[in-house]
Amino acid sequence: MKVYTIGIDYGTLSGRAVLVDTRDGRELATAAMDYPHGVMDTVLAASGAALPPDYALQDPADYLLVLRHIIPEVLKEAAVSPEEVAGIGIDFTCCTVLPIRADGTPLCFEEGFRHNPHAYVKLWKHHAAQSYADRLTEIAAKRGEKWLTDCGGTVSSEYLFPKIYQVLDEAPEVWQETHAFMEAGDWLTAQLTGNYVRGYQFAAFKSHYGKKEGYPSEEYFAAVDERLRFVVRDKLPYPVVPAGTVTGTLLPEIAAALGLSPDTAVAAATPDGHVAACALDTCKAGDAVAVMGTSAPFYVLTHEKKDVPGVCGTVEDGVVPGLVGYEAGLCCFGDHFAYAAQQLTSPDYVKEAAERGIPMLKLLIEKAAAKKPGEAGVIALNWWNGNRSTLVDSDLSGLFVGMTLQTRPEDLMRALIEATAFGTRNVFENFARHGVHATGLVASGGIARKDPFTMQLFADVLKMEIRIAETAQAPATGAAVNAAVAAGIYSTLPEAIHAMSRISDTVYRPNAENAAVYDALYAEYKKLHDYFGLGENNVMKELRRIRAAAKGI
Amino acid sequence: MKVYTIGIDYGTLSGRAVLVDTRDGRELATAAMDYPHGVMDTVLAASGAALPPDYALQDPADYLLVLRHIIPEVLKEAAVSPEEVAGIGIDFTCCTVLPIRADGTPLCFEEGFRHNPHAYVKLWKHHAAQSYADRLTEIAAKRGEKWLTDCGGTVSSEYLFPKIYQVLDEAPEVWQETHAFMEAGDWLTAQLTGNYVRGYQFAAFKSHYGKKEGYPSEEYFAAVDERLRFVVRDKLPYPVVPAGTVTGTLLPEIAAALGLSPDTAVAAATPDGHVAACALDTCKAGDAVAVMGTSAPFYVLTHEKKDVPGVCGTVEDGVVPGLVGYEAGLCCFGDHFAYAAQQLTSPDYVKEAAERGIPMLKLLIEKAAAKKPGEAGVIALNWWNGNRSTLVDSDLSGLFVGMTLQTRPEDLMRALIEATAFGTRNVFENFARHGVHATGLVASGGIARKDPFTMQLFADVLKMEIRIAETAQAPATGAAVNAAVAAGIYSTLPEAIHAMSRISDTVYRPNAENAAVYDALYAEYKKLHDYFGLGENNVMKELRRIRAAAKGI
Repeated sequence: MKVYTIGIDYGTLSGRAVLVDTRDGRELATAAMDYPHGVMDTVLAASGAALPPDYALQDPADYLLVLRHIIPEVLKEAAVSPEEVAGIGIDFTCCTVLPIRADGTPLCFEEGFRHNPHAYVKLWKHHAAQSYADRLTEIAAKRGEKWLTDCGGTVSSEYLFPKIYQVLDEAPEVWQETHAFMEAGDWLTAQLTGNYVRGYQFAAFKSHYGKKEGYPSEEYFAAVDERLRFVVRDKLPYPVVPAGTVTGTLLPEIAAALGLSPDTAVAAATPDGHVAACALDTCKAGDAVAVMGTSAPFYVLTHEKKDVPGVCGTVEDGVVPGLVGYEAGLCCFGDHFAYAAQQLTSPDYVKEAAERGIPMLKLLIEKAAAKKPGEAGVIALNWWNGNRSTLVDSDLSGLFVGMTLQTRPEDLMRALIEATAFGTRNVFENFARHGVHATGLVASGGIARKDPFTMQLFADVLKMEIRIAETAQAPATGAAVNAAVAAGIYSTLPEAIHAMSRISDTVYRPNAENAAVYDALYAEYKKLHDYFGLGENNVMKELRRIRAAAKGI
Repeated sequence: MKVYTIGIDYGTLSGRAVLVDTRDGRELATAAMDYPHGVMDTVLAASGAALPPDYALQDPADYLLVLRHIIPEVLKEAAVSPEEVAGIGIDFTCCTVLPIRADGTPLCFEEGFRHNPHAYVKLWKHHAAQSYADRLTEIAAKRGEKWLTDCGGTVSSEYLFPKIYQVLDEAPEVWQETHAFMEAGDWLTAQLTGNYVRGYQFAAFKSHYGKKEGYPSEEYFAAVDERLRFVVRDKLPYPVVPAGTVTGTLLPEIAAALGLSPDTAVAAATPDGHVAACALDTCKAGDAVAVMGTSAPFYVLTHEKKDVPGVCGTVEDGVVPGLVGYEAGLCCFGDHFAYAAQQLTSPDYVKEAAERGIPMLKLLIEKAAAKKPGEAGVIALNWWNGNRSTLVDSDLSGLFVGMTLQTRPEDLMRALIEATAFGTRNVFENFARHGVHATGLVASGGIARKDPFTMQLFADVLKMEIRIAETAQAPATGAAVNAAVAAGIYSTLPEAIHAMSRISDTVYRPNAENAAVYDALYAEYKKLHDYFGLGENNVMKELRRIRAAAKGI
């Protein structure tokens, strides 16, 4: 009986598959694999050439390789036969985009383009298109483009058009040869079925696509740059389809390679953050979801559409059908803590971690957790990867203040954790100021499930109850929910969500005493946030300019 | 023939002796030893009890122990007999102060006071008396005390009166039993001879003592706190004597313990920074000296006395007789770099340093030096230990801005080195604005002699030529110069300085291209300096307040 689906989540560093029972959402098996080339942010692997600052590229060959490894692995681990799998669904980081030929071949697979960085996948956190984003924002604002308010008033450099505009301007030879720019998730789905479509949520959240309005107009693009006038017609040729759509079944050779049956249904790809809500019983107004991974997107649902500045997207049916879905988030969350463990530690802690056989990250969080709120004496601005919400400015950078000769690595770690919570509070306060009220928060992602210290800190800072997803793989499970709809096991997405969501009993409730200390720290955070974020002191941008000049770029 | 003298320099972490030929200043031997208890800044060794923040204490037993070790060692290494040594001189960090009985016994030596932190030596960088310093400043400013302008308008928490006022207020039992508070250098000298005096430079630079005016008045102290009215009469009983004064000869039992002759002359103690000038041929107006160690005091000489805000001292005959000596400085210099090597590094660098068998500090400076000016992309405020000049505020703390996920430990190290140079430039610009022009700079200290990268960076940032001391031990050699005068080998200090100073041929000259980049970075530094240092954003103080509340102190 075909009662299982497989969801495959493509994250920043790895892909993971989860095999799910569609009757109750129970997970039977998971498998994961890192991308062999990881994120190329300093050097292009094929040539060894240095990359400019703020680049973040990937090799699409890694995605196929991971798929061929993890699908057979979950089947084997779950002891499920190929015939029992009804469908598969893929979710992906976004906007993560690549240029392809008409036959689907990525340009970077070709000898002539192997050494050209612009022929590769630009990962969501490729931030080198900021100047293009600025230009796209400026012209949209001048023209009063209506869609601009739906993305919070700013075109982020993480979106589609800045990334492909950068290709047009800096690598016209790539642009010229590109048949289509595709989200990596859409491209991968097409490799499975041979059918090329564009997932609605990718288009709506990252490319200003309106359910009724379509993409921004040719006049707008021409006003930005005459060369961009026909960008939609010429470079985004595929039809937009909603989540849960079946895009086809597996090509026979792919089915064979993956060890699946060729009649397996393939769902349209979805963004990795948005789809998590499908695993978290998030379907009524006021519900909010946080996916706490390397970055931390937040989704909030309302009945009425409100204009909220600084969000990344305001999209009808954007998360679940029938409600307006808002996306906002921190573009750097777990990455901050991994960074601190790798770059901001002490030789005696390296020794201690080795002796105890635990990772540095665990050691530093343990030591940070042993301190009281306020005891670290340091405040950070959590902008190591820029600021997504509410400032939408990837040229911002990190800050630490308050260090003395007694400050230890765990104090900096704690400041970073607190700063991400303060940044989150700022996002939710901004929502509330504009009439979007989150009443309940479900958190998923590795940190939500494994780090009670950080989650309690978030509850204290946000002064909000936080429930925790049972699944360790909310995006992958959400993709499996979509696959269940694509395979026809459920006829609507809300039906599938209701049947398949699983929330754990763990609830973090605010501690009033801690909350009072964090209120005082947050007031200081907010002051620094506004001073450095709203243009009163542009040192972060000036440092980027000086660094670029020093490196001769 | 008695042609040798020994200078003994008591630094923050260790004592070192140098045996010098008084005919040409040539060093025959040096010896050094760390204080067994180092700096007690977290725990009091005798009790294991935690110390409040900003404490920095020492155990005076360490000073005697070090002396008994290093004097015999230099004699042996130089192969000089005790009879050939004409005199010894001691220089010491300041204000580093301890409470003693009438017979010279430190209170902390007694069973009843062993567990009382206030019975120990308060090291120069004990910054926990800030509130007392604030009160002393406030009342002096209200009363228009003339001496206040000579210390730049602010009584630093590093000075004498805040430190002993803290004892009065927080440990009246110690105050009550204290016969005298002494600079550790004066106390140690008295242990050698049995004669109790107070070195003029300690009194003038750290206790507002004027050559003609004496100490601040009883009315002033009473206005601060009635209990302080007779502080000078009751707690500072010993006569003030100028540098080069012979305070006596060695007590027989001490001479025996040190392996010296009892007729060895002992010079009055001097501050460790000021005395360095005596080894660096610094004796005319416009000359400037920087002693680049854990902290970095600067001394500048002029004919006329000017009012310069933010200096630590303006003292007639303060450095050499006949000229006005100004002191200013960074209260944290090398300590910043040591801090970064201990707290801000990467596990892979720990491995690399171990494999190459080099200290982390050396590795990080090597990597920092390999980058171009501006390439690190980070700016720091070098206030990990507060700010001495020109803000005179020990409650300020450190800042880093500009970090991205690509920022590595060497970028933070470079930012710290640059920040100390920017802080120095700010000090010299402040001097120049008030009519004190430094025309030539001689640098001494370990960093000046051993770190060409940092010294070139200083020349580029200051846009000033920097000459380097030949001696590795300018303070100790300066103390030996004083000893030569005390022993009667020279009749005046300038005569001794002229005969005994040795400057190396190394000169660092500004590189115009680098200087232009640093100008741009300095502009950003200055903006941050003023914003956080002049009260526009008091986050650093607020963080201290919150931390103290969290720790319940």
